[in-house]
Amino acid sequence: MAASRSGRTEPGTRAERRKASTRQKLIDAARGFLASDTHSTASIQDITDAADVGFGSFYNHFSSKTELFQTAVSEVLEELGLLLDELGSRVDDPAMAFAQSVRLTVRLAVARPEMAQVLVRHGMAYIDADEGLAPRALRDIQAGAASGRFRVGEPRIALATTAGALLAVLHVSLVNPDGVTDAMCDEAAEQLLRMLGVPLDEAREIATAPLPAVDQV
Amino acid sequence: MAASRSGRTEPGTRAERRKASTRQKLIDAARGFLASDTHSTASIQDITDAADVGFGSFYNHFSSKTELFQTAVSEVLEELGLLLDELGSRVDDPAMAFAQSVRLTVRLAVARPEMAQVLVRHGMAYIDADEGLAPRALRDIQAGAASGRFRVGEPRIALATTAGALLAVLHVSLVNPDGVTDAMCDEAAEQLLRMLGVPLDEAREIATAPLPAVDQV
Repeated sequence: MAASRSGRTEPGTRAERRKASTRQKLIDAARGFLASDTHSTASIQDITDAADVGFGSFYNHFSSKTELFQTAVSEVLEELGLLLDELGSRVDDPAMAFAQSVRLTVRLAVARPEMAQVLVRHGMAYIDADEGLAPRALRDIQAGAASGRFRVGEPRIALATTAGALLAVLHVSLVNPDGVTDAMCDEAAEQLLRMLGVPLDEAREIATAPLPAVDQV
Repeated sequence: MAASRSGRTEPGTRAERRKASTRQKLIDAARGFLASDTHSTASIQDITDAADVGFGSFYNHFSSKTELFQTAVSEVLEELGLLLDELGSRVDDPAMAFAQSVRLTVRLAVARPEMAQVLVRHGMAYIDADEGLAPRALRDIQAGAASGRFRVGEPRIALATTAGALLAVLHVSLVNPDGVTDAMCDEAAEQLLRMLGVPLDEAREIATAPLPAVDQV
């Protein structure tokens, strides 16, 4: 049982591997539909065709289209969350860790428009979810508040405003990909830090600090 | 030709009035579908049934479902924009006017969940639109920057982050209506002011100033 990068364990037997592969093909196809917003009109046949698997195999893995699409969105958020956690664990300051997550999310999303589309179209429904990015962001906001780095009243309001702001920046990056520079991503992070109560000059400094190199997700 | 509150002029003849009434019935029905997110699967027959008008009359007013739904979303945003402009014109300070618009939008949306649903589900696509709330918010942000009240780099990024944050607060208010208080709406406005560069204490003061009474939109 080898652990993959994302922490999932690979099944052992050939049948199990094939089953996992079929499931993943369905999820990958679902990500494509989610990104193009054709998920509400796509039939299960459309999905199994796109995944290049038999129609009948769908119900071995998912009880409904809705379940598949929810799984696909959660997977995008979870992958991103795991990556940001890994990178963030190397940073002590909660404000620096938060800004790094924001800046890397925007850069990754700009580099991967399909992922950005999934986040923009479906992320709003997950901003107060129990898994994925939401609990991680809430944890970071609370850590920042506890250490005195952030000044927030109700952490869930701060979570909503920061997540919504981030989704809007991704939306803008999709509408006008050529107009989005790294400097603009950093400016967005700076604004979110200010929103969380970090003073102006400090927010600028934190939002322009060097970033770790990333080519994952 | 009497001007209505929203600035539209009422048509003169009986036939013109009936035509305008049919058009408005279609738009009102579309708002219902938009709020429940059944607009992508609703047929034109469903819409004319809900509007209680003849199927054939649809194409006298709109060339497609898409055109109708876009008109309906634009109408919500334009109505809200006109109201906020009217109320904001009584306020000199750009920061105060901006905070008032944010606080009133959240209060109105909480009081009118259908409007909030339309904004949350479709508002993201309009955050850089040429009409409705977007150009008004951009104007207010630029006025605040020009007067030194706001400190923003790229106004369109500030527009995106504030609009996204606002939509997320509306989303949270729909998910948990009982958990949203006026104080939380004001906290969101305070965070947006901070984001635009208003110092912490000032942001608190501006975001808790008395609001005009509103029962419109």
